[in-house]
Amino acid sequence: MGSAAEDELRSMGRGVRTIRRTVPGVKDLPVECKKLIDEEGCELVMALGMPGKEPIDKMCAHEASMGLIQAQLMTDTHIIEVFVHMDEAPDERQLEELALARTREHARNAHLLLFKPEALRAQAGTGQRQGFRDAGPVEGRSAVYH
Amino acid sequence: MGSAAEDELRSMGRGVRTIRRTVPGVKDLPVECKKLIDEEGCELVMALGMPGKEPIDKMCAHEASMGLIQAQLMTDTHIIEVFVHMDEAPDERQLEELALARTREHARNAHLLLFKPEALRAQAGTGQRQGFRDAGPVEGRSAVYH
Amino acid sequence: MGSAAEDELRSMGRGVRTIRRTVPGVKDLPVECKKLIDEEGCELVMALGMPGKEPIDKMCAHEASMGLIQAQLMTDTHIIEVFVHMDEAPDERQLEELALARTREHARNAHLLLFKPEALRAQAGTGQRQGFRDAGPVEGRSAVYH
Amino acid sequence: MGSAAEDELRSMGRGVRTIRRTVPGVKDLPVECKKLIDEEGCELVMALGMPGKEPIDKMCAHEASMGLIQAQLMTDTHIIEVFVHMDEAPDERQLEELALARTREHARNAHLLLFKPEALRAQAGTGQRQGFRDAGPVEGRSAVYH
Amino acid sequence: MGSAAEDELRSMGRGVRTIRRTVPGVKDLPVECKKLIDEEGCELVMALGMPGKEPIDKMCAHEASMGLIQAQLMTDTHIIEVFVHMDEAPDERQLEELALARTREHARNAHLLLFKPEALRAQAGTGQRQGFRDAGPVEGRSAVYH
Repeated sequence: MGSAAEDELRSMGRGVRTIRRTVPGVKDLPVECKKLIDEEGCELVMALGMPGKEPIDKMCAHEASMGLIQAQLMTDTHIIEVFVHMDEAPDERQLEELALARTREHARNAHLLLFKPEALRAQAGTGQRQGFRDAGPVEGRSAVYH
Repeated sequence: MGSAAEDELRSMGRGVRTIRRTVPGVKDLPVECKKLIDEEGCELVMALGMPGKEPIDKMCAHEASMGLIQAQLMTDTHIIEVFVHMDEAPDERQLEELALARTREHARNAHLLLFKPEALRAQAGTGQRQGFRDAGPVEGRSAVYH
Repeated sequence: MGSAAEDELRSMGRGVRTIRRTVPGVKDLPVECKKLIDEEGCELVMALGMPGKEPIDKMCAHEASMGLIQAQLMTDTHIIEVFVHMDEAPDERQLEELALARTREHARNAHLLLFKPEALRAQAGTGQRQGFRDAGPVEGRSAVYH
Repeated sequence: MGSAAEDELRSMGRGVRTIRRTVPGVKDLPVECKKLIDEEGCELVMALGMPGKEPIDKMCAHEASMGLIQAQLMTDTHIIEVFVHMDEAPDERQLEELALARTREHARNAHLLLFKPEALRAQAGTGQRQGFRDAGPVEGRSAVYH
Repeated sequence: MGSAAEDELRSMGRGVRTIRRTVPGVKDLPVECKKLIDEEGCELVMALGMPGKEPIDKMCAHEASMGLIQAQLMTDTHIIEVFVHMDEAPDERQLEELALARTREHARNAHLLLFKPEALRAQAGTGQRQGFRDAGPVEGRSAVYH
């Protein structure tokens, strides 16, 4: 997922410099993202993770999400969370496809947020699902919101 | 929803200046709202979103709500959350109607909160549901509270 | 509920000065309470609300409660939460009675907390339910705790 | 529970000075504990409470616990939470016994944490249940953790 | 678990100095970890705990996890959480084995995070379960995330 994100960001045609870090688990993401902002001066962070299927994994993802939101509020900086849950696809191949597609879509959104925020408005409410085929207006799961 | 909010705020008859931002998902709202307050000097923010029907979407909305409350406490500034859940109406047309009606009601409340806070008291406990027909005293789902 | 609170506080026989504010929903309470402390110098706040019966309303009340606790920790000031859930009484009349009785009991506790904290100890562990008839020792739902 | 805690702390044979405060409900504990640290200079606080049996009471206890953890992080000071849930014992007498036994065990732990932290290690992983008879290694409900 | 962590960290072949603290329960971990960072200057903390099987224990673990994430964000320092739930293994012997194996794996990750963060990337997405036999790519429960 990290390589897909870097590739997509670079393909957007602007001189984006990226720093990539790996942590042991999703719950280690919030502080690592905050360090990337505080210590490395990152202007935006993408937090990529693939939580498991078990209830305990769902809880970990929830805790990580809460931490990611808190890290954003403490730094006034966007952290784009890209979590792909292991039960979102029926098999491993489709899970990987979904992970890569969602990562690329979020990378494009991250780029817009930084460099062309007004372009996000055109997508708002059109029901675009990150990593799934678009579901049409007002039905998408990860729709773009105002 | 963004246009309905702007339109309603302008129709309240005072020189309200608005800034509009779009973010990829509801979980990106808390930091964007805080930036509007910290960096743009907004005195009040409306956070508009339409979370999906799935349990994961409900969890995202909960996480966003917690972040929005935290952002308010960090800035001593009101952020009016207007979330319309995709399972609140039986079809797309009614969902859109509900979203627009709720947005307009919340916009009126936001305006009162800023310019005529004492007028909110008259509505308290009268069970006005934002975006639904009023349900009568002490029965409304989104009643106005002290 | 607001009038009952003010009335009870005044009847306690000390020169309590009150400020009353109304907000659109329970989730707007945390920041408003914090502003009353930060901007108006209130030494204690009562947060009165009547959350609805639906799961989404329970979640909103939970989010508001978390925010109220956070607001207290940020200001080192007590905020007495008085929430009456709409499914706590079988009909509207009893709900209103319960709301008023609970508000008055909490107002008395708020007064004691400010002016006679040692008097609260006498009630501890005696199972007094706010707004219900007392249930006897160690059985009350909203017992007074150390 | 408050008296049992004070009694146990004094019996540990060191000049511990205690301050005791009573608040109306468990959700009032976090800020009161923080005030005891900030305003009274307490080096450790025990937070004693007896949440009820209903789902709403469990939620209140959860909210209070989250607040207690936050208060500790804001002050770098331990707050030992001693909650006895009203459904942990079959009748009132056993509930009271449990509350007193758990309070005394936690008081001993609090004392060790302050004055002899290295002594806690000997108990770690031995499955001691606060207020229940010990359950043997690696089975206790409130085991002592590293 | 504490000894296994210390042993593993020392075996990694660098002059790691460790400080070990024991607290009464998992909910006492967040502030103790923060004190180790603030007062003892630790550059990384491992938080080891073994929550029980009951719903209340799961809730305590969740509250502790949220506090650990908050402590990390307040200090910009990693705290590696190693929780082994008592219902993760069928008997006591296997539980102990799992606890030791998971602790050692997390200790290795902690060491890499501090001294060789780039080495973590090689493991990302390979589905390594801490303390279980590896499950193969994209299926592990505690996979290594970017």
